[in-house]
Amino acid sequence: MESIGVDHAGLGILDRETCARLLASTPIGRLAFISDGDVVVMPVNFRYHEGTIVIRTAVGSKLEAAARHAQMTFEIDQWDDTQAAGWSVIAKGRAREVLDDAEVEELSALGLRPWADADNKHRWIRIRPDELSGRKIE
Amino acid sequence: MESIGVDHAGLGILDRETCARLLASTPIGRLAFISDGDVVVMPVNFRYHEGTIVIRTAVGSKLEAAARHAQMTFEIDQWDDTQAAGWSVIAKGRAREVLDDAEVEELSALGLRPWADADNKHRWIRIRPDELSGRKIE
Repeated sequence: MESIGVDHAGLGILDRETCARLLASTPIGRLAFISDGDVVVMPVNFRYHEGTIVIRTAVGSKLEAAARHAQMTFEIDQWDDTQAAGWSVIAKGRAREVLDDAEVEELSALGLRPWADADNKHRWIRIRPDELSGRKIE
Repeated sequence: MESIGVDHAGLGILDRETCARLLASTPIGRLAFISDGDVVVMPVNFRYHEGTIVIRTAVGSKLEAAARHAQMTFEIDQWDDTQAAGWSVIAKGRAREVLDDAEVEELSALGLRPWADADNKHRWIRIRPDELSGRKIE
């Protein structure tokens, strides 16, 4: 993974294509958003599908945030403690709940299975990032 | 790691002692806070020292947030993709910059070395969580 430069903190900058590739190959990310004035961070399994982050969920704070088109910050990373090396990608964008039947069917075919409470998770959240950035330490 | 119950989403609940033990044995976490109305999420290496999260940093948005005693959400997790199992811990509390010389000396002795740009990171942020919670999937 090549960086395309170095930021003010000495971290390598990943290009958008690399960020997208890492999103497509990572099973778990962290969804962060504001709920009642508080920053909520939740690990979720997800898929990166046609340039969007897709999450299957049940009724709850994530879905409420998606229903009000909340701004989301989604983060993935991977680290090697022994090497003090790793990378992270941040995707930012507004969330929405997927309500269109054809789109629900399309997402259902992705084979995304929640790790917990799958039987109650029949709702879908989709985030199209308007900001995608990545950093690496090596 | 035993859970002490199950939450509404079917996740095992970790007790405070387990959360503290996991914080003490994890090198990397994610610091989330609000900056200019936006949710920022940053991976950081840290130490859990005397019930507090300690981060060594340079001048930047983390330090600015600490200087204004911003509410922080700190997250650690670990996942096994092949088992669809894992855990996460969330610690919430207000941050502060450590300005007392004796305290800086105490933290400097922890051996916490930033993975990137260590030469410029001589400032310290400390968060005493007023909320500590953990979940597991197994």
